[in-house]
Amino acid sequence: MNVEKIRAFMQGKGGMSNNDFDYSMSYFKELQLKKKQHFLFAGEICKQIAYVNRGCLRHYFINPKGEEHIIYFAFEDWWVGDLSSFFSHTPTVYNLQALEDCELLTISSADFTRLCEERPKFNELYNAKTRNAYTSYIDKLRNEKAESPEEKYLKLLEKSPLVLQRIPLIYIASYLGIKPESLSRLRKRLAAK
Amino acid sequence: MNVEKIRAFMQGKGGMSNNDFDYSMSYFKELQLKKKQHFLFAGEICKQIAYVNRGCLRHYFINPKGEEHIIYFAFEDWWVGDLSSFFSHTPTVYNLQALEDCELLTISSADFTRLCEERPKFNELYNAKTRNAYTSYIDKLRNEKAESPEEKYLKLLEKSPLVLQRIPLIYIASYLGIKPESLSRLRKRLAAK
Repeated sequence: MNVEKIRAFMQGKGGMSNNDFDYSMSYFKELQLKKKQHFLFAGEICKQIAYVNRGCLRHYFINPKGEEHIIYFAFEDWWVGDLSSFFSHTPTVYNLQALEDCELLTISSADFTRLCEERPKFNELYNAKTRNAYTSYIDKLRNEKAESPEEKYLKLLEKSPLVLQRIPLIYIASYLGIKPESLSRLRKRLAAK
Repeated sequence: MNVEKIRAFMQGKGGMSNNDFDYSMSYFKELQLKKKQHFLFAGEICKQIAYVNRGCLRHYFINPKGEEHIIYFAFEDWWVGDLSSFFSHTPTVYNLQALEDCELLTISSADFTRLCEERPKFNELYNAKTRNAYTSYIDKLRNEKAESPEEKYLKLLEKSPLVLQRIPLIYIASYLGIKPESLSRLRKRLAAK
């Protein structure tokens, strides 16, 4: 597996030395997922988190009425997993499914804890990542509260142009919280503008 | 100001020594806010974050139509501020307003960075707090996507019973994303059950 992307993440943004990077990578395992395979199912304990080296996944949950809601799509250079379950060792309510064939680099919670202790740079990097994710979720919540599906759709295209190229419309509709028919109408309306 | 709550937070959950606690506290400043006063306005840079020692606040934003949406209510033992603005020194889109007379303990971003470097225990504690906040926001987003206002209201009462005792109904309605009249009807319907 080519590790140049995770190297850029750790050594570029994270300022890790070659030595720290090589040491950190010794804790990661390669995992190949076929399209439609799951990395995580609701009810399981999230025993590993993963760096997405190639491919994309959807992070979703199923509400008590049996409806699926997508929280995010993860592409290359994202981290996936449920941190709450990962650190507390309690079952997750989320599912993570590959939407394309994926190459992941995974790390178990015991190894993650060990690596954070042994290489403070890795700990620092991951904490900065978590802080960014935290503030981006407050923003997502804000959008969810304040925006119409059309506004959400336009923002999604602007922020994640990859979504339209790589994600089936049925999942984009689920992310927006609307029926696929409504998304088709919305897209026709926007195209006519 | 009585600092026993923040001491319990830092020394209990955080496992800080007396010495680390006293040293950390030397960076915090006391701030009294009168009811209705703002700690932060949209458009400003969030130059300090604060521990809520007494009182409660609302964290909200105003959408382009001029409607207010509340993201959360903060009570004693919460931290408030906009971390994104605090760390990036860019203007915030959020407002923080006292809903009761408040006693806060504030720390500036320069002091926060210094303290994290000087006392790793403080850094560790704050990172754990951020990680918990991050996962709780994914859950909030899940609820926002999947739950009806009635379900959200019942969950709010269960998780934060203080809300009903201390927060005016008009703000609870804003948190739920409904009109105050709808909240009144919802409450009547639930009372009749």
